Amino acid sequence: MSQKQKNLSENHKQSLIIYGRHAVLAALANPRRQINKLLCTREASADIPASCRITPQITERKEIDKLLPSDAVHQGFALLCERLPSCTLNDILDMAANKNKCHVLILDQVTDPQNIGAIIRSAVAFKTLALIVQDKNSPLESGAMDKAAAGMIEHLPIARVTNLSRAVEQLKDAGFWTIGMNGRAKTDIDKIDKSGKTAVIMGSEGKGMRRLVEESCDIAVRLPISPLTESLNVATAAAITLYEINKS
Amino acid sequence: MSQKQKNLSENHKQSLIIYGRHAVLAALANPRRQINKLLCTREASADIPASCRITPQITERKEIDKLLPSDAVHQGFALLCERLPSCTLNDILDMAANKNKCHVLILDQVTDPQNIGAIIRSAVAFKTLALIVQDKNSPLESGAMDKAAAGMIEHLPIARVTNLSRAVEQLKDAGFWTIGMNGRAKTDIDKIDKSGKTAVIMGSEGKGMRRLVEESCDIAVRLPISPLTESLNVATAAAITLYEINKS
Repeated sequence: MSQKQKNLSENHKQSLIIYGRHAVLAALANPRRQINKLLCTREASADIPASCRITPQITERKEIDKLLPSDAVHQGFALLCERLPSCTLNDILDMAANKNKCHVLILDQVTDPQNIGAIIRSAVAFKTLALIVQDKNSPLESGAMDKAAAGMIEHLPIARVTNLSRAVEQLKDAGFWTIGMNGRAKTDIDKIDKSGKTAVIMGSEGKGMRRLVEESCDIAVRLPISPLTESLNVATAAAITLYEINKS
Repeated sequence: MSQKQKNLSENHKQSLIIYGRHAVLAALANPRRQINKLLCTREASADIPASCRITPQITERKEIDKLLPSDAVHQGFALLCERLPSCTLNDILDMAANKNKCHVLILDQVTDPQNIGAIIRSAVAFKTLALIVQDKNSPLESGAMDKAAAGMIEHLPIARVTNLSRAVEQLKDAGFWTIGMNGRAKTDIDKIDKSGKTAVIMGSEGKGMRRLVEESCDIAVRLPISPLTESLNVATAAAITLYEINKS
């Protein structure tokens, strides 16, 4: 890392570097995203719209390489910016207040940033109102997460709460039916009522959700899979679940 | 790489190194998998069943690291073995002959080994009879593919054909209804008849399927996603599609 690059990254220690074409273009288009500096290769700069609110600094691919983890597929785009602010559970309840049908997703102990990014992409695809995670054990927004989300993090409110069981109780009080995904459950996801407000709770692949969180759900539901398969990847399971919940 | 490690990998140049707990244990349990050498750490060896057909060679984690790409999460397991033999399209037609309902998956131009591995995992979860790919543009079985498949490649027949459009025609002749997945299609996946034999065809994320392949399908079908989302990851789209097709 050159001294110049070092200074550049030190100046933005509290910030985030978003990389990859989709992720960077979506962040630039989001007025809520506070941006600091846009680096791109000459080739990549052709994709930056003329109306962009920041002038890109054209640089060599290898200069962007130096700012990012060695396995980061940046496609010539790097955006130095601030993390998106979280919302609160009350914000989500307000958003849901005047809706007849909507759904939120709650993740318990899912810690892999790429899985969370992939889940965010699916959540937006299937019109999830918001994502709720536990502040203590959920990773902060990162370049790897945003890359996997392919820009969709710009469209999904995310609440970081202290206590997930309490959040489940508050959602129930607000009229949400709370559905815990569990491979050992007896009821298939497509057999349940999806006509009102629902909150889907998913645990991590290995450990599942914590007992207290699981016990606070109204119903345990499973995805019907072959006995040959122990489990699905958590991002895959989330995508199918949200697809099914979103159906009219 | 030490001389010993170098010899070890040169001796097996035509072979494959499967890594990761699930992938290695599933390969060991598959009598069709020809195995050459099993390396594992002392800790990992506790998971090798006493009935295992090969005696594990206990080694240090760093010796396994040397055999694999730097980002390979091997969990202390490395199995030097041969690729699984492909099946033919005729084998698949024979398997389907006495079934009333079954489905196969055809991938056109999907080239990322991890996506293909993830798709194989979902295919087994949702009882897909077989996978069909074009020999020329589809990667061979690899450690990265098998890791993403979490051992499920041991359970899925895979045919590598020369001409996909011709394979689609042969499936039609054998009574399969052929469904091309296309984001611009008018029909949603859950609105179609899934009562008989179906073949689902999916293209790559960027390019979709080739025109000739698309034109050979009976119907074009889409997954209903938000207009905010340009597309889903191909492995995510495949998982949802196979989940929906497998429904009774």
